[in-house]
Amino acid sequence: MDELKPMDAEQLREYGHQMVDFIADYYKNIESFPVRSQVQPGYLRELLPDSAPVRPESLQDVLDDIQSKILPGVTHWQSPEFFAYFPSNSSVAGFLGEMLSAGINMVGFSWITSPAATELEMIVLDWLAKALKLPDQFLSTGQGGGVIQGTASEAVLVVLLAARDQVLRRVGKDATGRLVVYCSDQTHSALQKACKIAGIYPENFRLLKTDSSTDYALSPESLSEAISRDIASGLIPFFFCATVGTTSSTAVDPLTELGKISNSNGLWFHIDAAYAGSACICPEFRHYIHGVEGANSFNMNAHKWFLTNFDCSALWVKDRSALVQSLSTNPEFLKNKASQDNKVVDYKDWQIPLGRRFRSLKLWMVLRLYGLENLQAYIRNHIELARKFEELVNLDSRFEVAAPRRFSLVCFRLVSARNDVEHANQLNRELLEAVNSTGNLFISHTVLSDKYVLRFAVGAPLTEERHVLEAWKTLQEKAALLLSELKESDANKVGWNLECEYLQYQVRGEVSVSNIHVMCRDERQCK
Amino acid sequence: MDELKPMDAEQLREYGHQMVDFIADYYKNIESFPVRSQVQPGYLRELLPDSAPVRPESLQDVLDDIQSKILPGVTHWQSPEFFAYFPSNSSVAGFLGEMLSAGINMVGFSWITSPAATELEMIVLDWLAKALKLPDQFLSTGQGGGVIQGTASEAVLVVLLAARDQVLRRVGKDATGRLVVYCSDQTHSALQKACKIAGIYPENFRLLKTDSSTDYALSPESLSEAISRDIASGLIPFFFCATVGTTSSTAVDPLTELGKISNSNGLWFHIDAAYAGSACICPEFRHYIHGVEGANSFNMNAHKWFLTNFDCSALWVKDRSALVQSLSTNPEFLKNKASQDNKVVDYKDWQIPLGRRFRSLKLWMVLRLYGLENLQAYIRNHIELARKFEELVNLDSRFEVAAPRRFSLVCFRLVSARNDVEHANQLNRELLEAVNSTGNLFISHTVLSDKYVLRFAVGAPLTEERHVLEAWKTLQEKAALLLSELKESDANKVGWNLECEYLQYQVRGEVSVSNIHVMCRDERQCK
Repeated sequence: MDELKPMDAEQLREYGHQMVDFIADYYKNIESFPVRSQVQPGYLRELLPDSAPVRPESLQDVLDDIQSKILPGVTHWQSPEFFAYFPSNSSVAGFLGEMLSAGINMVGFSWITSPAATELEMIVLDWLAKALKLPDQFLSTGQGGGVIQGTASEAVLVVLLAARDQVLRRVGKDATGRLVVYCSDQTHSALQKACKIAGIYPENFRLLKTDSSTDYALSPESLSEAISRDIASGLIPFFFCATVGTTSSTAVDPLTELGKISNSNGLWFHIDAAYAGSACICPEFRHYIHGVEGANSFNMNAHKWFLTNFDCSALWVKDRSALVQSLSTNPEFLKNKASQDNKVVDYKDWQIPLGRRFRSLKLWMVLRLYGLENLQAYIRNHIELARKFEELVNLDSRFEVAAPRRFSLVCFRLVSARNDVEHANQLNRELLEAVNSTGNLFISHTVLSDKYVLRFAVGAPLTEERHVLEAWKTLQEKAALLLSELKESDANKVGWNLECEYLQYQVRGEVSVSNIHVMCRDERQCK
Repeated sequence: MDELKPMDAEQLREYGHQMVDFIADYYKNIESFPVRSQVQPGYLRELLPDSAPVRPESLQDVLDDIQSKILPGVTHWQSPEFFAYFPSNSSVAGFLGEMLSAGINMVGFSWITSPAATELEMIVLDWLAKALKLPDQFLSTGQGGGVIQGTASEAVLVVLLAARDQVLRRVGKDATGRLVVYCSDQTHSALQKACKIAGIYPENFRLLKTDSSTDYALSPESLSEAISRDIASGLIPFFFCATVGTTSSTAVDPLTELGKISNSNGLWFHIDAAYAGSACICPEFRHYIHGVEGANSFNMNAHKWFLTNFDCSALWVKDRSALVQSLSTNPEFLKNKASQDNKVVDYKDWQIPLGRRFRSLKLWMVLRLYGLENLQAYIRNHIELARKFEELVNLDSRFEVAAPRRFSLVCFRLVSARNDVEHANQLNRELLEAVNSTGNLFISHTVLSDKYVLRFAVGAPLTEERHVLEAWKTLQEKAALLLSELKESDANKVGWNLECEYLQYQVRGEVSVSNIHVMCRDERQCK
């Protein structure tokens, strides 16, 4: 057997060029794939061997398998018809940054293990902080600074740990069972998970209720009352998380007032702007984070809507020493002069893992290759596309917009003519499955005030107006079909009595005859 | 301003090819860089602007900056003269896998968000488990399975949390303060950090002492006694971590006996084989993980010594439900039919973050493009190179091997003729700094039984015999220089009185005249 040369520069060049073409072709053809993969669970095991090959295989064999076996199982987040979850932006600049990071392939846990990795991260997060007009206390030039975490889940976990340990140093570690965390019921589940990890008692995790009266934002009274009640019971409030742009409906918590309550009670105040933070580089949207001055930490995901390939979650803190106190370890084998002299930042002490990739490269390349002006235009364009979609929904009386649209997410639903929440929910569940099964687009859902609501999240880099219009067309067609099936089902007396509802639609002229297929939703029940 | 098209397939093609050439050229010239970056703290801030550009810049500008500003600040982990930490292997296959993962850029938290990502990960970790001859219980076809974590730190954290919650469900959550974790004093600091995160009391974290009598492996008696003592005190032993290939000296804990003690006391038994696990694909090294049958979880880093670009830490568990019980969340917006029907694995519930990259692609490509036979040869070659280095150390009486070499790490040190541990330690500290400052190679250090020891870790993909020989030459030269400086320093009566020691070396003919430079180590002290 020839000796393996796993990092031959000329082989890297040859194969790297092949892979670039493969990926460029993928983007060229991306609209030809079903957006949501249509495979069945377990599909891949039948297509691949049981064990790793003993002898090498060719790159062409692997590329063929990727085309024929892997891509059918991919849900195409970069498809222009991907409207399901908040986006995970890929861009040429972000992709180049990932390539370079993988090429250099260093592990930057301490400054000395690649000074450029630490220093570029500090500088680029200062750049982004300035673009967001964050207060100077979040800059690395003071007591605070920014750090790239993998995800918003890790960001909220590390600040929760810093806050936990800070309060436990004061009240004693036996008090963990009395620590209380606050957020709204719209807060991302990442905080609940972080609490489980940190050992916060489930009964001390306060999911404060919101409703449509505040557009699902947390009311300051609600926070204030909860804190007072807990203090009166001898508990120790210590952490509050507000959200700018909730996952379900992009609700924005009122930061200034909430911050005051949080600060005056000595809580750590964290802001999760994972998705909507990106929009705040535009002056006209910056007001959504007014009040960030009062926060101890602020997080936005550059990998969502900021063209920086996953993962790149930017976290800023005002007091980096709190993080370091919770997360530092200093084993002998990692000691080095620069660290011991306290002249440098060692990001290993700001995060859960030890090792870390050179992720600042991609964010740096995004900022440089596009520039802030272009990035603002990019955000505005998506918000405008979402506004157009909202308009289409409003024009069709079969549908309703289910929560105010602020950024690029539209929450909407098919309305039920009957006054029956569960029936309406079932209708929308079926509409979701029907449109996603076409492969033409991919949307997701949530529940707001017990209503099952569809989420149409604009944000993929390739999405243009025509994709939004096509998506709406599919939605309308599937809705019409669903309603006609309900009618048919009713006519066959096998299901619900929906004739009344169907007739209402018909009267309003919203069901065309051509859409009424002579088929039953559930053939087993057909007589 | 023209509309930004951030993901244009043809621009990706053009720029991607440029970046491939840039990276291939980097590897072509990698030996021309100082291995450990020689920049001073804060170097980069002076070279970059204060804020992000408003208008786009060209790719060429960015590439020029990478060459002139970033690369000087990079410590070159892929350099063939990188012997400092355990390696972080890059390979053509691993690099291609990273590219493709960045190209597809999906976020695979649930099966539905890209079925191929979940399924390929399950399959490839089964492949690797089979290559390591792990017991069938670790395969995904039973109650267990594998998962890719970012790092060994995350791997040990998630199993610690699973174990913590399992025992707390039994004894009640108020018992956290009585939970005890065991490991040896050679265990990676990641476990200590995991304990801090999980809220284990510092006084209940047992770093059991090891010494040279067991070659720094943990003695079963030591574990058994500690557990008995803690049970007698009313504490609750619940987690034990053994290591195969410790960071300091590649010690191997005796798994079979430790596992029996662990099992009979109901502890979760985790094996950290982050570095040495890779070697166990060779039949002749597989015996190092004999006893893995008794473990609840097993971890090896494919990103260390297995040619899979960082990050890719493979974790296997026997009981995946324990992980899922600790780490699952199920918010409405992530619910989907496949998950609700329990037909699929959702890896979000096996890890700390929600989002996850398509990391199995790179491991799959490494296994396929190289094949197991080549991978075994790759490991054997590094071990042989380390053996040669060990031989060179043994041939030079100024040096000694400081711990048995098992894999590709050699622990060695310059011996002091004086019977003074601190003096010898200082000598080796200076030797470390002297060789690393040349830029010719990069080594690291540890402390074993109070002795400062140098670590020479072979493992970079480009390392050949000539690099090991050149590294040794630099080490010998710097050692000779250091010893001659000690003599000079002594002659000037500005430092320690080391004449006696110097003369001993001279008598043994180990200091050549040409190496005696007329300069003082510390000029400020020169008279």
